[in-house]
Amino acid sequence: MRALVLDRGLRFDASRRDPEPVPGEAVVRVVRAGICGTDLEMVRGYKGGLAGVIGHEFVGVVESVAGASGLVGRRVAGEINVVCGTCATCRAGRRTHCERRTVIGIIGRDGAFAERVAVPVGNLHVLPANVSDDAAVFIEPLAAAARVAEQVECGPGVRAIVVGDGRLGLLVAQVLAIGGASVTLLGHHAANLKIVAARGIATAMHARDVTPGADVVVDATGTPRGLAAAMELVRPQGTVVLKSTCATDVVHAVDWNRVVVDEISIVGSRCGPFERAIELLATDAVDVASLVAGRYPLERGDEAFELASCPGVLKVLLEP
Amino acid sequence: MRALVLDRGLRFDASRRDPEPVPGEAVVRVVRAGICGTDLEMVRGYKGGLAGVIGHEFVGVVESVAGASGLVGRRVAGEINVVCGTCATCRAGRRTHCERRTVIGIIGRDGAFAERVAVPVGNLHVLPANVSDDAAVFIEPLAAAARVAEQVECGPGVRAIVVGDGRLGLLVAQVLAIGGASVTLLGHHAANLKIVAARGIATAMHARDVTPGADVVVDATGTPRGLAAAMELVRPQGTVVLKSTCATDVVHAVDWNRVVVDEISIVGSRCGPFERAIELLATDAVDVASLVAGRYPLERGDEAFELASCPGVLKVLLEP
Repeated sequence: MRALVLDRGLRFDASRRDPEPVPGEAVVRVVRAGICGTDLEMVRGYKGGLAGVIGHEFVGVVESVAGASGLVGRRVAGEINVVCGTCATCRAGRRTHCERRTVIGIIGRDGAFAERVAVPVGNLHVLPANVSDDAAVFIEPLAAAARVAEQVECGPGVRAIVVGDGRLGLLVAQVLAIGGASVTLLGHHAANLKIVAARGIATAMHARDVTPGADVVVDATGTPRGLAAAMELVRPQGTVVLKSTCATDVVHAVDWNRVVVDEISIVGSRCGPFERAIELLATDAVDVASLVAGRYPLERGDEAFELASCPGVLKVLLEP
Repeated sequence: MRALVLDRGLRFDASRRDPEPVPGEAVVRVVRAGICGTDLEMVRGYKGGLAGVIGHEFVGVVESVAGASGLVGRRVAGEINVVCGTCATCRAGRRTHCERRTVIGIIGRDGAFAERVAVPVGNLHVLPANVSDDAAVFIEPLAAAARVAEQVECGPGVRAIVVGDGRLGLLVAQVLAIGGASVTLLGHHAANLKIVAARGIATAMHARDVTPGADVVVDATGTPRGLAAAMELVRPQGTVVLKSTCATDVVHAVDWNRVVVDEISIVGSRCGPFERAIELLATDAVDVASLVAGRYPLERGDEAFELASCPGVLKVLLEP
């Protein structure tokens, strides 16, 4: 099959071996996949570069399942953490943090920038018909955005600032606003800010135009400068949510005495609830269509990554 | 009156002007005061060095109150944050974080290393007879220790590690154990560890002897290395509580990608509930007597500070 493979660099492989169905797994024919910040960081060297097919945001159709299954032919999205279910962390209910996990397209398991990807049946979510393929590719990042609302109180009366108007920032801002929080998105790209402004979310292009002292500040910048910027905007006893991993050894310039004196909480945030993301898309509560910046076949993966790396560019799709 | 004054360095002043009673405040004759890490850091330059009398852990007797009051002659401890009650932060119920606060002996207000200290009446707690003067001087730091249990779930079933066997670490370990958590104190000083071991708390002198993966890890080291050490011991989705302020510009070597991927929470922690601390002392639930390492008159403040600065030395008292 055709695939984008990361070994030292990213390269197109026209004859990658197809995934073989193993018990408990489905082979999914990928219809769309999205390039996210983690993919870009991996190509830059984060995680030492998994040797294999990358890509973890996808929608596809189940082609085969080892053993009979009603899933064949169904349109699905897939959760990315493949967990053992038996380690102490899994048994404690923290399955996405399984000690023996592999992660589709990220750790120890081939991903979705390919014609086919193998996914454990338990990771699949069958999609409602009214969620388009283009929308469904946003389920994974939208779930990651919804994770913030699971970790931090974001209802009515809460003032939240999202720093960073990239792919993730736009989704987080929308999710928090849906939850009832009063949200401001602070970014650099007028066109991106416009997308959430159209949904009634306040926006700003300079920190000086934002009233500091927010209850919750989310760093969705994907840069080593993000946390310090977020810290400037949070109130005493407020919470800063850190969303992004970086390839570089990150040295956030944090005023640790302020963390103690003002009793700030800094909370790391990763994967989130697929059910909630699917619900948000099925009810058209979140604008994801405006985030699509380009679409490429796998053969043109290098161009797709080049575009996705450009400042302010949102979601680039691959269509195997 | 006699007092220890910090301007550029710490010096004994035999003729400091007595505090004058102003409406709403009491003049308290100081019976005992304790030297804490913040005092040491202030002498080293933290906060730029308040110009005035330092000291914020104290017990004393109310000598006078502007206007009549039943408080005169009563033995009291005093909360250290002097708040306005009217700013947005106060009105939101976060009074210890008042935007216009002064802090006794720390910010903009003379402290307790003196014969007398002025304290707003609303900050005073009248002490039960069965709490000795020596014990009462621990109310402020014990309240700060109890603050951790307000911020993080520390009941039965929770495994907690406290890093640092100094003054604060010993109190935090005891408070968490009383709450029902399974606690290990990791430190360097056998004599200090013995104090909490006598109360049934597990202790260790090397990180390699501690099982990592704790639900809660408290950094009470007071050093820039503490947070990184704590991070090594916390489980995915666990919480690191940061207790100490440092004079130096702190550059904690934090693995930020791990914070995100493992969804770690880092929580700053400062002042706590006096009522709870008084209750713990009145019921003899916490051993503080064993923490007293020395006692000095104000005239020998330099010696007291020298002793308090030595590694492993616990609470040094001043007796005006």
